[in-house]
Amino acid sequence: MTIRAVVWNEFLHERHDAEVRAIYPDGIHATIARALAVDGGISAATATLDQPEHGLSQGLLDATDVLLWWGHRAHGDVSDDIVRRVQQRVAEGMGLIVLHSGHFSKIFKTLMGSPCSLRWREAGEKERVWAINPSHPIARGIGPCIELPNGEMYGEPFLVPEPLETVFISWFEGGEVFRSGLTYQRGAGRIFYFSPGHETYPIYHDAAIQQVLRNAVHWAHNPAPAWKDVSDAPNVPIERARERIVQQGATLHKPGEAGLR
Amino acid sequence: MTIRAVVWNEFLHERHDAEVRAIYPDGIHATIARALAVDGGISAATATLDQPEHGLSQGLLDATDVLLWWGHRAHGDVSDDIVRRVQQRVAEGMGLIVLHSGHFSKIFKTLMGSPCSLRWREAGEKERVWAINPSHPIARGIGPCIELPNGEMYGEPFLVPEPLETVFISWFEGGEVFRSGLTYQRGAGRIFYFSPGHETYPIYHDAAIQQVLRNAVHWAHNPAPAWKDVSDAPNVPIERARERIVQQGATLHKPGEAGLR
Amino acid sequence: MTIRAVVWNEFLHERHDAEVRAIYPDGIHATIARALAVDGGISAATATLDQPEHGLSQGLLDATDVLLWWGHRAHGDVSDDIVRRVQQRVAEGMGLIVLHSGHFSKIFKTLMGSPCSLRWREAGEKERVWAINPSHPIARGIGPCIELPNGEMYGEPFLVPEPLETVFISWFEGGEVFRSGLTYQRGAGRIFYFSPGHETYPIYHDAAIQQVLRNAVHWAHNPAPAWKDVSDAPNVPIERARERIVQQGATLHKPGEAGLR
Amino acid sequence: MTIRAVVWNEFLHERHDAEVRAIYPDGIHATIARALAVDGGISAATATLDQPEHGLSQGLLDATDVLLWWGHRAHGDVSDDIVRRVQQRVAEGMGLIVLHSGHFSKIFKTLMGSPCSLRWREAGEKERVWAINPSHPIARGIGPCIELPNGEMYGEPFLVPEPLETVFISWFEGGEVFRSGLTYQRGAGRIFYFSPGHETYPIYHDAAIQQVLRNAVHWAHNPAPAWKDVSDAPNVPIERARERIVQQGATLHKPGEAGLR
Repeated sequence: MTIRAVVWNEFLHERHDAEVRAIYPDGIHATIARALAVDGGISAATATLDQPEHGLSQGLLDATDVLLWWGHRAHGDVSDDIVRRVQQRVAEGMGLIVLHSGHFSKIFKTLMGSPCSLRWREAGEKERVWAINPSHPIARGIGPCIELPNGEMYGEPFLVPEPLETVFISWFEGGEVFRSGLTYQRGAGRIFYFSPGHETYPIYHDAAIQQVLRNAVHWAHNPAPAWKDVSDAPNVPIERARERIVQQGATLHKPGEAGLR
Repeated sequence: MTIRAVVWNEFLHERHDAEVRAIYPDGIHATIARALAVDGGISAATATLDQPEHGLSQGLLDATDVLLWWGHRAHGDVSDDIVRRVQQRVAEGMGLIVLHSGHFSKIFKTLMGSPCSLRWREAGEKERVWAINPSHPIARGIGPCIELPNGEMYGEPFLVPEPLETVFISWFEGGEVFRSGLTYQRGAGRIFYFSPGHETYPIYHDAAIQQVLRNAVHWAHNPAPAWKDVSDAPNVPIERARERIVQQGATLHKPGEAGLR
Repeated sequence: MTIRAVVWNEFLHERHDAEVRAIYPDGIHATIARALAVDGGISAATATLDQPEHGLSQGLLDATDVLLWWGHRAHGDVSDDIVRRVQQRVAEGMGLIVLHSGHFSKIFKTLMGSPCSLRWREAGEKERVWAINPSHPIARGIGPCIELPNGEMYGEPFLVPEPLETVFISWFEGGEVFRSGLTYQRGAGRIFYFSPGHETYPIYHDAAIQQVLRNAVHWAHNPAPAWKDVSDAPNVPIERARERIVQQGATLHKPGEAGLR
Repeated sequence: MTIRAVVWNEFLHERHDAEVRAIYPDGIHATIARALAVDGGISAATATLDQPEHGLSQGLLDATDVLLWWGHRAHGDVSDDIVRRVQQRVAEGMGLIVLHSGHFSKIFKTLMGSPCSLRWREAGEKERVWAINPSHPIARGIGPCIELPNGEMYGEPFLVPEPLETVFISWFEGGEVFRSGLTYQRGAGRIFYFSPGHETYPIYHDAAIQQVLRNAVHWAHNPAPAWKDVSDAPNVPIERARERIVQQGATLHKPGEAGLR
């Protein structure tokens, strides 16, 4: 079964900044999509901010197994309705991989429930991404660490909930550390945050980084059928209780009435 | 040091439904506040939906160590601005205890990032709240379990993130189970969700339930100073890096410029 | 790639107790192995206590992807050396599925580091195994719960570390609850504890239970190469440090000397 | 209530190596005990390997709230019986703080169930201990990080289970990172591993390190009464079940018989 990945990108820096365009002439999303498609088990489409519904129609999301997200300067331009739609799809089982400056995207902050803040410095300093758990499916095949000659420093404290697993931790030349690969689940959906990937450095051209992204798509893929009613809170009436019980005490609900929310 | 607790209640059922008023004539919040105040180390105030700013002004929240939240039929009437304010205070270090139907409150869903849905039945059936970790500070002094003669059934799956700790699990006469006590952290704030507490049963008059609430207030209290800038993402300029580094590569940011978000 | 599973059983009750033999004439291990082999992607061998090295030679373990463990009355007869061997293989990446009374096996207690104690009652009462996370790979295909007409009650508190994930919680007719499906990792190995499976009831003949076991074998399988030196603590000498550093301060170690342990 | 801490040290380097003795003339344990006693709420005793029962009699452990452990070259000389005794006390609720090379102590490996291996280098390089969660009780009052001019490098992967919380991560001059502060629970006991503290550097004289140790003693203290029967697995006979049930199916146990283990 082919995993249907979609790479979302706000696609602004590449059009407005020559330095970025020189590195990602077709956009970061195109580079990542090509890197994913090297894996015969992954099909990779793209979507961008300027498309209708940001390219994330309900139909497309329903046909997406894993969504990757890159955004930076236009987080505020992403529609709240689309964010809710993506959040619901994650709860139903769609995987989500949030990249780099996506830590401040609406969708990541919505799913984490915490500030997602951090410290940062754009000095092009050396970053070394250590595999904390080299046996984790996301870290396979990359060796003990990934050396990036130029990275944007992201430093702790990183205001996210305790993760399910810490997969990578980065060392920075300027003296900081950062939990650069973290896993979460929300409903039926798996989430991976991966911090390398600044727009002014060719990080998404790095072979090991590309391997991590392919690994992450496999890891985030939940082959179970979409859990469409995951957000519903159904009543289980007395007559359908698994043990025989009788009504006791007062009730404000009428039989068959929907729950409050 | 006295812990400053505030019990928030939408305070509607008690005014509209005679059955509820009979159990909580002054409101659920008043009953809980009295139960907390039995502990000399806790001061307990209250706030309700109909007050200006729902009784949750910035000044009051800044002077609150632990907020308790009971809501049911008016979740949608709570202002989004107030929800953001409470979320920020949790990130800064305020504890939050979410009660019963508060699983669908805006603040809980915002902090969890997941649907927070469940199954339910209002049959007044027996509920037995087992202490999974009797040594946890929240479970101290209550023995192996709390027997509630009448409870609203809340059943799994409960769509919340994996908790830091599972403190209680409930058994229901009708055949379901529910993780009835769960802990989380978001930023500097500790969160406890506790499911017993339906408005038509006198659950908050139960001595063991009251003990859990007092315990939870102590557990959720973070005595560290409020982390006011927890949501900021400060730049650490090169000249203030802890190791000596020099600028390399391109940058889109001008020196001293604020980060994007 | 076929997953090489091995079902280990102490295989005593089936030979000594007619009631057990009536249910599992070839042994619990044979019944489970047949259930696994229904899945064309799993090959299932067996091993028992009375074999040389309990059937768990180094060669066999090195060729095992996932080990299942059933023991009850002879935990103490399992060799400490074999336990250490299994523990090392788990750290290297072998999956381990511990069943029912295996909660008190040496290997499970060794991997958990905690007492693994619980409450119990052998009354043949009804057990209902709820899927807490129905989207988890281990729970797929079984629906909301598994109804077992007769189960041995295992009750909380269950003295294990907080799990990575709670997959199942059981409801018992006599009033208890139990976290009946829990996941852990130790080194490169994934561990699943699954509590249903008492020797005097035909639980391993249940289709849904068999589905859980097959699911769990897939989940526990780590396709990464065995991490043979996972327990080593290698020195990284100065000349091989990734950043240039010079020796400072005193040292008690001579160059090239092995670390202490 | 004063917290009764005991600092255990193998106390060998300080007697055999002049360099170590120069830094810790009375032993590492004495330095740490003095640092703890600065806090009026902590009483700090010591115990060493060469004492009868390594200074850890049952009586002493029963009167200990939090045990700190420093060992390096004589892990193998610690009696297995004493290790089991300490493990049982942790399960009953005694806190345990494992320091530096104690990662390879019998008690830590026993409680973790994993290899506890790591990479290391004794080059006296700079170590910077970042507070990942500055609001955690263990990190209070130390600021964003602790700068150690000379540290022994401990590098990832560190083969421990996923922690409850990652409190500190260290940056090393030579290019590695390490999760230097991790929390766990086992039964009623809280465990903190803290990696700084090599015998040839004066790290335990550092004011911020001492603050962390005092904080950790408070955090690890469980004021609940000791859970003496935490390792027992009591039968709950039918007549004492909380719901009325009748015996069904076969049973191998006779009424009143103890469980197998």
